[in-house]
Amino acid sequence: MHPSVWLVGAGPGDPELLTLKAVRILAQADIVLVDDLVGEGVLHYCPQAQIIRVGKRGGCRSTPQSFIQRLMLRYARQGLTVIRLKGGDPGIFGRSGEEIEWLARHGIACGIVNGITAGLAAATACNIPLTLRGIARGVSLVTAHTDDDSPPPWEALARSGTTLVVYMGVTRLDDISRQLQEGGLPGHTPVCMIENASLPYQRQIDSTLHEMPADGQAAGLRSPAILIIGSVAAQAGTQATSCSEYRSCMIPCSQEA
Amino acid sequence: MHPSVWLVGAGPGDPELLTLKAVRILAQADIVLVDDLVGEGVLHYCPQAQIIRVGKRGGCRSTPQSFIQRLMLRYARQGLTVIRLKGGDPGIFGRSGEEIEWLARHGIACGIVNGITAGLAAATACNIPLTLRGIARGVSLVTAHTDDDSPPPWEALARSGTTLVVYMGVTRLDDISRQLQEGGLPGHTPVCMIENASLPYQRQIDSTLHEMPADGQAAGLRSPAILIIGSVAAQAGTQATSCSEYRSCMIPCSQEA
Repeated sequence: MHPSVWLVGAGPGDPELLTLKAVRILAQADIVLVDDLVGEGVLHYCPQAQIIRVGKRGGCRSTPQSFIQRLMLRYARQGLTVIRLKGGDPGIFGRSGEEIEWLARHGIACGIVNGITAGLAAATACNIPLTLRGIARGVSLVTAHTDDDSPPPWEALARSGTTLVVYMGVTRLDDISRQLQEGGLPGHTPVCMIENASLPYQRQIDSTLHEMPADGQAAGLRSPAILIIGSVAAQAGTQATSCSEYRSCMIPCSQEA
Repeated sequence: MHPSVWLVGAGPGDPELLTLKAVRILAQADIVLVDDLVGEGVLHYCPQAQIIRVGKRGGCRSTPQSFIQRLMLRYARQGLTVIRLKGGDPGIFGRSGEEIEWLARHGIACGIVNGITAGLAAATACNIPLTLRGIARGVSLVTAHTDDDSPPPWEALARSGTTLVVYMGVTRLDDISRQLQEGGLPGHTPVCMIENASLPYQRQIDSTLHEMPADGQAAGLRSPAILIIGSVAAQAGTQATSCSEYRSCMIPCSQEA
């Protein structure tokens, strides 16, 4: 059955980080439902499509998920090819689970196309390896924001032996820093905070777990941003091309690596 | 400084999962040092380049990392554009940390291009959302293989509240199953084992944490394979197009989602 709805990862913002498959599917779209974390440049790959903006930001005013799902269904039933274009990867904090299940329940074939998730793009843009032999056996991608506002099990994450990549954490730097230290991560653990990863106005702030809240506030860190917490973050910025105050670096995405 | 060495993610195998940036850089390559987990189709994007295979498989006979690094340096010093082409993403179990640091120490500018890491591609190919509101607050990508053979802290990972995506775990299904259950994950936790994610001969085996070793053995699970462990794995295969024995599914990558 040929999918009539596609959940497509738009990547972190730099249009060059789209996959070939995403570009092919975008060129076939009649309707594109766009999240507000999708880079504008990405939309140049679907000039023929009707663009509908359905942005949702953690904690902000947003289009109800149920409304977005009804839109997908309505257009699909009209025989149109519908793309749900999401920042990053659909399977990572992208609500794809709810949409896949809902579409399947309504008999709509659904395709999914991976995207580069923001956490991986942020690490790459700062030359941070997320895993490193003998140092980090893995990486955990977690969000600090939930609807019910219950915190992640920071203590277990602190002992997981993985590099921690935190999405949607900008407003919770204090909690994250305190709870990870309570979980056993040293205050001197290297931290890299990356705003607008992969975009020309990307900003990188090097810090430590203890200083993260103060450094983030001093730098005026704003969403969307990624926190990379772990020894590997000490490698950050070895390719940085220029530095300004707050030990932050602006890296044109043409030189992102 | 224009990079003369690029660490490029080739993605999971399906050439369509390359990024536009990877394709652009591949077209500029003089020398491409290729891992053995790179899909053959990917090499069609660098017909002009000299291909040097430097495959390394966990636990298998392999090209020494130090030799690969010396090759990169030698060709870069000849003024050639060198690509280190890695399966998946360079920053996830890709040895990029060692190579970035080594090249920097020798004054060689290095660029990095993200790829779709196998764990995310495997989840997408089976319609598994790696995060799900109220169910999985995040995802941990870990490897079961290390040079020193020390196990990951499975107990902390079991309590991390994240979906677990295990790379290089095929030969350790017993240990992983036992230790995660000892860590508190129920034996009935859904598991999806995906062999050759994103490729036409991809194979998917649905199981549970308790049955994973027996089901993996019965199905003759072989590397490269990804284990997805967590409640979200219960969504696996809702788009599967055909089923054979062992509850395994073959999904042509043209219909991978």
